[in-house]
Amino acid sequence: MSGRSAQRTVATAAFRASFAAIVLLVAWASVARDAVAAPATPSGRVLARVREHRLSHQGTILAEFADLLRIPNVASDSVNIRLNADRLVTMLERRGMSARRLELPGSPPAVHGELRAPGARRTVMLYAHYDGQPVAPKDWASDPWTPVLRDRPVEQGGREIPWPGDRQAIDPEARLYARSAGDDKAPIVALLAALDALAAQGAKRSVHLKVFLEGEEEAGSPHLKSMLAAHRDQLAADAWIFCDGPMHPSRQPQLVFGVRGVMGLELTVYGPARALHSGHYGNWAPNPIARMTDLLASLRDGDGHIRVEGFERDVRPASEAERAAFRATPDPDAALRDELRLGGTEGGGARLSERILLPAINFRGVRAGGVGEGAANAIPTEARASIDIRMVPDQTPAGVRAAFEDHLRRQGWHIVDAAPDSATRRGHDRIVRLEWDEGYGPYRAPLDAPFSRALAKVMEESLGRPVLLTPTLGGSLPLAHLNDVLGVPILVLPIANHDDNQHAANENLRLQNLWDGIDVMAGLVVRLGDLWR
Amino acid sequence: MSGRSAQRTVATAAFRASFAAIVLLVAWASVARDAVAAPATPSGRVLARVREHRLSHQGTILAEFADLLRIPNVASDSVNIRLNADRLVTMLERRGMSARRLELPGSPPAVHGELRAPGARRTVMLYAHYDGQPVAPKDWASDPWTPVLRDRPVEQGGREIPWPGDRQAIDPEARLYARSAGDDKAPIVALLAALDALAAQGAKRSVHLKVFLEGEEEAGSPHLKSMLAAHRDQLAADAWIFCDGPMHPSRQPQLVFGVRGVMGLELTVYGPARALHSGHYGNWAPNPIARMTDLLASLRDGDGHIRVEGFERDVRPASEAERAAFRATPDPDAALRDELRLGGTEGGGARLSERILLPAINFRGVRAGGVGEGAANAIPTEARASIDIRMVPDQTPAGVRAAFEDHLRRQGWHIVDAAPDSATRRGHDRIVRLEWDEGYGPYRAPLDAPFSRALAKVMEESLGRPVLLTPTLGGSLPLAHLNDVLGVPILVLPIANHDDNQHAANENLRLQNLWDGIDVMAGLVVRLGDLWR
Repeated sequence: MSGRSAQRTVATAAFRASFAAIVLLVAWASVARDAVAAPATPSGRVLARVREHRLSHQGTILAEFADLLRIPNVASDSVNIRLNADRLVTMLERRGMSARRLELPGSPPAVHGELRAPGARRTVMLYAHYDGQPVAPKDWASDPWTPVLRDRPVEQGGREIPWPGDRQAIDPEARLYARSAGDDKAPIVALLAALDALAAQGAKRSVHLKVFLEGEEEAGSPHLKSMLAAHRDQLAADAWIFCDGPMHPSRQPQLVFGVRGVMGLELTVYGPARALHSGHYGNWAPNPIARMTDLLASLRDGDGHIRVEGFERDVRPASEAERAAFRATPDPDAALRDELRLGGTEGGGARLSERILLPAINFRGVRAGGVGEGAANAIPTEARASIDIRMVPDQTPAGVRAAFEDHLRRQGWHIVDAAPDSATRRGHDRIVRLEWDEGYGPYRAPLDAPFSRALAKVMEESLGRPVLLTPTLGGSLPLAHLNDVLGVPILVLPIANHDDNQHAANENLRLQNLWDGIDVMAGLVVRLGDLWR
Repeated sequence: MSGRSAQRTVATAAFRASFAAIVLLVAWASVARDAVAAPATPSGRVLARVREHRLSHQGTILAEFADLLRIPNVASDSVNIRLNADRLVTMLERRGMSARRLELPGSPPAVHGELRAPGARRTVMLYAHYDGQPVAPKDWASDPWTPVLRDRPVEQGGREIPWPGDRQAIDPEARLYARSAGDDKAPIVALLAALDALAAQGAKRSVHLKVFLEGEEEAGSPHLKSMLAAHRDQLAADAWIFCDGPMHPSRQPQLVFGVRGVMGLELTVYGPARALHSGHYGNWAPNPIARMTDLLASLRDGDGHIRVEGFERDVRPASEAERAAFRATPDPDAALRDELRLGGTEGGGARLSERILLPAINFRGVRAGGVGEGAANAIPTEARASIDIRMVPDQTPAGVRAAFEDHLRRQGWHIVDAAPDSATRRGHDRIVRLEWDEGYGPYRAPLDAPFSRALAKVMEESLGRPVLLTPTLGGSLPLAHLNDVLGVPILVLPIANHDDNQHAANENLRLQNLWDGIDVMAGLVVRLGDLWR
């Protein structure tokens, strides 16, 4: 997932930690793990041979992975980022793919590859990114770009172990440490190992395969949209699979169909031009905190009810299939309330999974004057609030912004987009400065579309376990951007372990996640085209 | 005025700066400065001779003042503070007063003096404090405890000038620089110089005179109440005059009859036990900022209307005399709105002077999560607000606090006075922690009481100018504490120039303020008893 800023990293860490709680629960209430694919079927036999091939090539797979991880991959390091791209082109070509760098001025190259499947009707695009978060080497137990294996997580005292040779057993709980081991070179290596295993047995591919490997995702994907537009023909596909992000902490396979959109807003309300003694001027000079309080209270209440007229106009009700999918997931709410020490929740007791099907206005910060030791008996000059807005289909950033601003005008606010000058301040009683970030809209693919059903089935067959179908994350990824340009369904298929320390020091990949990734990729190549009808 | 903390200093500076604006206006609209006292009356002749005596003793007066200022006077410097007290006892005794230190364990001594007036019926107590704010010598243009004269304010390039001899003319705009030159040794020196001038001509005193010189005012007067209680008999008087604080920036003589009370409150509202990803949990996990917004909006609105039931129950309506006094003061509001860039004010256009006759709830700070660069897409764990409440007669801190807490309970809040434990958080949906400071109540002396009228008349006669009668400051002084113990009227009579840098570096006294102070003190001694009927 993108790490546009430190904030995002913090939030992601919070998300991971919290998600862990949800998912432990899911694990406790665990669904029976029936083996779905039996080796008796033709595809079952193919997949069994893939596993066998992997077991006898573990050393080779890890060695190639390590070689890729050795190339530093911060998006701003233009020399090394290009070395990564060139290496990837070579690696793709080695599997018989046509591969090339996609260039755009000022941008790290993306890498595009294609592997046709004789007789296949559908084309699927696999997305991954090969750049990684910047590193602070002093925080790492070993150099971020010198991959090592450890027998368990370094936080649990994991010790370095030797690289295995082929056919040499290795504990699947061992972990490969290096920047981007999890986020997001793992899916690339999984795919290529799967192709090798399939080629070795001459297995028939069921789908035309494309890959799009981005080189600046951790820098916020500034060129993604134009890259897609500039290379529209090469990137055409019937569906995209977004291989990024950590898996569900239950380790249950998970397919994600959507995300909420997000848009940030910084809001400043103005008081007197300089701080005033609260005794001598209190309840005459306008208190900007009190005015901001009026404004914020007009947006939503403490129970999460949104009061902005028109804000929810474009909300498309969740489908019965979406509601059913959430109902099929064990309810973590009671345990979460315990863990988070909540005496109540917003939304009048509705489930968390129902609430994230709705838009949200979150007050992420307020700041004005001083509190505690820093408090002065003064009327401050301004008050600030920071807000993030989560959108659901079919809301758009532009529509939400318009509803929001109309609402403020109806409340008597004069809206400015920069610090107001003296004449503006003197001329308007209630002035609010709004600084919007661009944001992006929500995205949700239908659960019951042919591609959705096919991919879920591929995962079940490949892993022999039921798959969690998650209609939407409460959080956000810029899938709407992709969908705007591509106009095809996009699903999110995570490969890396939830505790992979992505974006942080000691990033790692649990080997079993890599092995499972290879199985899923192999299943996808041989089965997706047949199931996708 | 007290400088209990840095906050107070900041607020005082803001107050001074703002007050300057009000008063420049007052000065513009200036009332004709008729000479009220003509030398033709007996008292007029006495005061003329006082001025003459002062002119011929300027060097002596300044030398004695400088000697007093040379003794460092921070309340916590117990050795030097005692040297100050001893010096003051000597200085009082030199004027024929009976004088002594008032002691209380752990406290700097106060100094008490008394000078009986044969045949007088009334006793008046003059309050001043001899301790000063701590200093940061590096910020001063010259050593804080090495007094110097400058021809004008140091901020305007004032240069040091020699100490004058007696009968040597000196510009009354010159300034005496030293810690406590203005705050608050000036009234002491003014009184003693007045007594010398009256003694030289054998003038008859009209009133029994007492002084109470506090030694820890700038440390927050922690022993004042017990000091008053312990020495009740010596401190008995028919009225107190509180000689402290800077004068009105118009330089128009001013008599202040009251202050608003003040009480501070720190308020914390709780959310989840740890910060949560706002996407994954937004509008399910309670947002503490939104809940605090509900709470704050229930207290008052952006127009200053107080919504707390019972909060204003004990407010005594302002008297017609009080309203008339404010009406007699030129209205600074329009100019203030310009200067402060206000597009409107709280209270629906009511005058500032009307508004400070009412109680106020001021939001002095809010803090939660992050804004701007510090914003994270997270739900914070808590939100804090800092509030100061200004009270008017007959509100009390206890009464206001009770109304406030009842209101919150009616709104469904569970009130705690310390950080809630896990069980409390789990057990209550809306929890607010309230941390009250002790605060003190309001005080207002009647404008038309005999003592009030007499003191105003003394000032007019002494200075030959009309006096601003200010029913109340919007700000606060602990006069209610004094009144609780003493049960007699207390008026505030400022002597120091408004731009004396009190509490800051380069504290100074404008010499004309000292000369005027001597005139007022002399008038008080010879005329107050006669006018006070």
